[in-house]
Amino acid sequence: MILAPSDTLAASFQQVRTQTIQLCAGLETEDYVVQPMPDASPAKWHLGHTTWFWETFVLQPNLPGYRVFHDEFSFVFNSYYETVGRRSLRTQRGNLSRPTVAEVFRYRTYVDEQMDRFLTDFSPDDTLTNLITLGIEHERQHQELLVTDIKYTLGHNPLFPPLEIPVEEHTPQSAATPVTVAEGVYTVGYQGDGFCFDNELGAHRTYLNTTTLSGTLVTNAEYLAFLEAGGYEQFQHWLSDGWAWVNANRVRSPLYWHPVDGQWQHYTFAGLQPIDPEAPVCHVSFYEADAYARWRGMRLPSEFEWETARLQGLPNTGQRWEWTGSAYLPYPGFATAPGAVGEYNGKFMSSQMVLRGASVATPPESIRPTYRNFFQPDKQWQYTGIRLAY
Amino acid sequence: MILAPSDTLAASFQQVRTQTIQLCAGLETEDYVVQPMPDASPAKWHLGHTTWFWETFVLQPNLPGYRVFHDEFSFVFNSYYETVGRRSLRTQRGNLSRPTVAEVFRYRTYVDEQMDRFLTDFSPDDTLTNLITLGIEHERQHQELLVTDIKYTLGHNPLFPPLEIPVEEHTPQSAATPVTVAEGVYTVGYQGDGFCFDNELGAHRTYLNTTTLSGTLVTNAEYLAFLEAGGYEQFQHWLSDGWAWVNANRVRSPLYWHPVDGQWQHYTFAGLQPIDPEAPVCHVSFYEADAYARWRGMRLPSEFEWETARLQGLPNTGQRWEWTGSAYLPYPGFATAPGAVGEYNGKFMSSQMVLRGASVATPPESIRPTYRNFFQPDKQWQYTGIRLAY
Amino acid sequence: MILAPSDTLAASFQQVRTQTIQLCAGLETEDYVVQPMPDASPAKWHLGHTTWFWETFVLQPNLPGYRVFHDEFSFVFNSYYETVGRRSLRTQRGNLSRPTVAEVFRYRTYVDEQMDRFLTDFSPDDTLTNLITLGIEHERQHQELLVTDIKYTLGHNPLFPPLEIPVEEHTPQSAATPVTVAEGVYTVGYQGDGFCFDNELGAHRTYLNTTTLSGTLVTNAEYLAFLEAGGYEQFQHWLSDGWAWVNANRVRSPLYWHPVDGQWQHYTFAGLQPIDPEAPVCHVSFYEADAYARWRGMRLPSEFEWETARLQGLPNTGQRWEWTGSAYLPYPGFATAPGAVGEYNGKFMSSQMVLRGASVATPPESIRPTYRNFFQPDKQWQYTGIRLAY
Amino acid sequence: MILAPSDTLAASFQQVRTQTIQLCAGLETEDYVVQPMPDASPAKWHLGHTTWFWETFVLQPNLPGYRVFHDEFSFVFNSYYETVGRRSLRTQRGNLSRPTVAEVFRYRTYVDEQMDRFLTDFSPDDTLTNLITLGIEHERQHQELLVTDIKYTLGHNPLFPPLEIPVEEHTPQSAATPVTVAEGVYTVGYQGDGFCFDNELGAHRTYLNTTTLSGTLVTNAEYLAFLEAGGYEQFQHWLSDGWAWVNANRVRSPLYWHPVDGQWQHYTFAGLQPIDPEAPVCHVSFYEADAYARWRGMRLPSEFEWETARLQGLPNTGQRWEWTGSAYLPYPGFATAPGAVGEYNGKFMSSQMVLRGASVATPPESIRPTYRNFFQPDKQWQYTGIRLAY
Repeated sequence: MILAPSDTLAASFQQVRTQTIQLCAGLETEDYVVQPMPDASPAKWHLGHTTWFWETFVLQPNLPGYRVFHDEFSFVFNSYYETVGRRSLRTQRGNLSRPTVAEVFRYRTYVDEQMDRFLTDFSPDDTLTNLITLGIEHERQHQELLVTDIKYTLGHNPLFPPLEIPVEEHTPQSAATPVTVAEGVYTVGYQGDGFCFDNELGAHRTYLNTTTLSGTLVTNAEYLAFLEAGGYEQFQHWLSDGWAWVNANRVRSPLYWHPVDGQWQHYTFAGLQPIDPEAPVCHVSFYEADAYARWRGMRLPSEFEWETARLQGLPNTGQRWEWTGSAYLPYPGFATAPGAVGEYNGKFMSSQMVLRGASVATPPESIRPTYRNFFQPDKQWQYTGIRLAY
Repeated sequence: MILAPSDTLAASFQQVRTQTIQLCAGLETEDYVVQPMPDASPAKWHLGHTTWFWETFVLQPNLPGYRVFHDEFSFVFNSYYETVGRRSLRTQRGNLSRPTVAEVFRYRTYVDEQMDRFLTDFSPDDTLTNLITLGIEHERQHQELLVTDIKYTLGHNPLFPPLEIPVEEHTPQSAATPVTVAEGVYTVGYQGDGFCFDNELGAHRTYLNTTTLSGTLVTNAEYLAFLEAGGYEQFQHWLSDGWAWVNANRVRSPLYWHPVDGQWQHYTFAGLQPIDPEAPVCHVSFYEADAYARWRGMRLPSEFEWETARLQGLPNTGQRWEWTGSAYLPYPGFATAPGAVGEYNGKFMSSQMVLRGASVATPPESIRPTYRNFFQPDKQWQYTGIRLAY
Repeated sequence: MILAPSDTLAASFQQVRTQTIQLCAGLETEDYVVQPMPDASPAKWHLGHTTWFWETFVLQPNLPGYRVFHDEFSFVFNSYYETVGRRSLRTQRGNLSRPTVAEVFRYRTYVDEQMDRFLTDFSPDDTLTNLITLGIEHERQHQELLVTDIKYTLGHNPLFPPLEIPVEEHTPQSAATPVTVAEGVYTVGYQGDGFCFDNELGAHRTYLNTTTLSGTLVTNAEYLAFLEAGGYEQFQHWLSDGWAWVNANRVRSPLYWHPVDGQWQHYTFAGLQPIDPEAPVCHVSFYEADAYARWRGMRLPSEFEWETARLQGLPNTGQRWEWTGSAYLPYPGFATAPGAVGEYNGKFMSSQMVLRGASVATPPESIRPTYRNFFQPDKQWQYTGIRLAY
Repeated sequence: MILAPSDTLAASFQQVRTQTIQLCAGLETEDYVVQPMPDASPAKWHLGHTTWFWETFVLQPNLPGYRVFHDEFSFVFNSYYETVGRRSLRTQRGNLSRPTVAEVFRYRTYVDEQMDRFLTDFSPDDTLTNLITLGIEHERQHQELLVTDIKYTLGHNPLFPPLEIPVEEHTPQSAATPVTVAEGVYTVGYQGDGFCFDNELGAHRTYLNTTTLSGTLVTNAEYLAFLEAGGYEQFQHWLSDGWAWVNANRVRSPLYWHPVDGQWQHYTFAGLQPIDPEAPVCHVSFYEADAYARWRGMRLPSEFEWETARLQGLPNTGQRWEWTGSAYLPYPGFATAPGAVGEYNGKFMSSQMVLRGASVATPPESIRPTYRNFFQPDKQWQYTGIRLAY
């Protein structure tokens, strides 16, 4: 990894911190507080947690004389780092009215000022540079979650309130030709010298069969055909777990879709809107993506087919996270860093599927061909879509 | 019921509406929103629901040309009236960031103005007078719930924040002599001509054996002796359901008690405080009250013993709701009013226990010797205490 | 209590033990084993548990040199006596293939022989006589449960197998005139000198208003009218908990009813049978009984109204346990016996309703006007019916 | 696939049917009935289900004039084939006392006779031969499940009863040298012309890095060291889901282990026995296998590393199913057969891990280097063990 000079780090730090706040510009105080499902953390929590990361991993160990803003915040804003003491239950985050939003903003300001002081005097050291870079990428990940979690909150409110937010959710895609990867041995995994997460390291060879990936994502119109053909009522398209999920939750469409006067609408940040037939389908689970592909007589690409195709010309897609047919597992030689930051990616390597690409909510700086996103196969609340392979 | 002249009604209406707002004076916006357990509705919901009551039952049917403030509010703020269309799930109230607190206040103002207009022109009519009186009493009930629900929210926050609120929670009680009711036939139930709830009507005779009720409530010091004697570890004091409740929830003390440096403290609106040994024990469930009484070789009074003793000199208690040994059941001849207001008390007459008296959070206007409060036997979050009988 | 001479006790003991076995004559080995819901214990368990009662409470403390049949059986066959060591989870009874049915029968034979030896030498002593009488009544209670639990098992088997068993389930009732109890003070509770349970003791006065109890139980034809009028779809007839129960369990009829070719049939020990319109409705929960009564504009009698009417000429009913409107609570002066046998009735005194009378499965020796049966309000699997009052 | 001449098929059919019965020789009638967890089906159900397979897929479509043994058995004994009509809930299998064990044996005899008649006249046809071969392999799979499910039932009985059954559970393993697979491209998947399951088809190339697989399985002594070092109390060894599983279920050892007088014993078909330190550890979940490997600084092999090593000399292991680090996913070109038999393997391809090898309960005829067994990562009740790779 080439070390960024400290002024660049300081600039990146300020940029990411400002960007987080800008995403929240349209929120009412109340919108910061609630947690309508365990996965969708309150915006307030995202603001506090990303700040806590800087305080705990950068300032406390490295800034002499640093005083924590509030003794109890470590308990409130730790997410899952078992190394760092007791943590508030994830499902209870939406029950906390305090600290108030204003206090969380004061916490951000305090930590930002201390970070500013710290970064000013900072002389490049590999470990610290890497840690700060990780903190920046960590905050970018939470920016995307902040968007999806707010959408979940407002999209499950009976008033379907619109929100001003700098996210362009639904644009038609331009035509693009399919990409065929020829049979052979390819190297996958991160090989650059910039930042990547630990789960992308361990570049290694893989053998691929000849495969073609569609140049475009499945559109709403295409997905609607599946739905109207009775796809959600026919077990034969579905994985066994998927069929159980469909029935237990009475799933009949992607998330946020609502039949209104005999027509499908969906909740967006502009409120309830008619579905654009040309836009790529969004908010589908892996089970739905997989069932749709099977119904079409195709399949989802593996994560290595995807990565190779991307390097061979598959257009940079920034619209939907694309479910792959690959389970989220370690690359050869995968090892976690020691200490709490090592609890980042590795421990989630079971029962999740890899998604590749990026979405309309992903900070552009984070997009990489080797980036491995991952979620359980039933999750719909991310900006997830479908690319077919055959 | 003697009809109040309309100006008194108008005054009472304004008084109760103002009082509701005064209870909220110390709240942060965030405190209005959350619902840390299904029973503890958000303050915002209480404000909206009581307002919805006036809009739905008084203004809509009676004020010509009345326009509802917002079409969707009926869905959001209905509590349990099956008669009045679909209703938002009680357990989901804490997931609604909208309408905002400010909007709910605007809703209140709008409805208050319309009510003002309505009550100004209002000529006394029995049905309407009764309905408005019911609305006032309904709002008073929600005032008490608002207090207990806010306490639950703040008392379960790891920061244990204090709150400015006009409730005097913990005062020592004055000495009072026991009251003995002699064996005989007594009449119980409401016989006055003021307001009472439907479940108090149907005054009827009951036969009581000679009973003595303690003049004072069980104190913290007395209850602590039970706790320290291992009361929570010994099945023989407990009802079977109570013992299961203790173990499933690992109950070891009244709600809000915390061991701090080897001493019991409890959460109050002044924050965490040492327990006052002289104050009446608070926030105990029926199971705890019943187990404590059995441990003492005594029992809880029945609701009719209580009511008779109260009429014979048991002091007006406004400190704790007192669990009785009586299940909540209809009085002879009990009938519900037709329509939605009839869904008020009767349908809850199973698996709940009667509480008598009043608490520090009860509006004084609502206190009556015949008032029947009721909760499930495992509930602790009301201001509930113990009076012994033998 | 007048003491039975020991030969009578011995005879009663043998009679009750034989009767238990006779009930099982038609069972296949497999029928003894399963537990399709937590309330419906396996027949094998009933046989073992009643035997364990004799071994634990009579033989072990009183027969010098008695050796327990098997060290682990106390763990397997204890039901709920917390006093007597760890106990197998009630919900796990149906997971135990061992001890086998044959072993349980050997256990019975062993204990019966020891009891025989014990009762032969037995010289009447009050405490022991009472204990043995209690054991006999305990076994009779389990005889009824054995019948209802077997019915539940076979009635939930897709083959609906018939069973030879000496229970006459469905007979039309003879006409009987209503009984009116005049207003006044009555004494209720057991006052005889034979056996009764501790919860019937404490005879005391009660004040009753004038009430009429129907001479007959509600018939299938009458109940069907409620069902066909949409009773299960209309919330206004139901208690709030009852309405939740109807919807959560999609209840649409009494237990064991099945629509077959457009007609209601029900499972009986003769297999699926058409419903006899004249027979009293059976297998209804308290919620259903209460809702039906409300739909008819009537109510359920209280347990004291029932007991008084019974003494004034209400015919001896041995067809259905009759739900009353009374919660199961202690009588004045109620006290439990010390030790494990005291854990018999008292600890269940919350959230259950009293049933009076007896059913087709009740051993006739156990029927008493003062007998208090009790179950939770949602239970349907006993032979429960409806008598109306007004 | 080379077709077996029909007499061989008939012989194999008879052999597998007889073998199933021989496994049950030591069972009591009661042992056939219960289902102590949803995964562990009753022995009775395995006997009926395998018979139902022959009746439904072979006899009904192919034997003219065949009459089903019992109309309702299809409902009772279908396992998960959504294509073949309604099916009894898997979790309810242990609630069915009927059909009795004797009836199920009659069902087997009836179907065996019809199959005999059918196979006698049978002239080799590819489709039918494949179907019958599949039926034989299907029954072999259920033989193994029958063993593990009976063990679960008896091993969770407080009496820990021994059972005569032809399964050699715990033998020490012979020393074997590690096998190193050199970096390169390998072909994996079934390439022979005998029987294999659909999920083994699609032989394809894969790229492997240099890897060494241990020649022996992890022993009880080795695993005990992990346990005694506090492995179950230290989150850092565990996947996040695994750590949650450990805590929710208070897992502290492999399944069937019990501390007895300060020493670990385990339940076996010989009853409770001291643990043999030299025998390979058994009944561990994937989470445990993975955590143990991490604690050792190693990892689990991938399924392709395993298969390649096996072909290069890794000894034929028939002791424990070996957890691999591979998720259960389709091979390139995987397609399911049309109709109900296609619902065999493919639909389970999510959230499960692949196991390779075979166990002491696996019929030797079924062992193949390419065989892919699969279970969810928390399952312990199969004969599962650990092989390390590095």
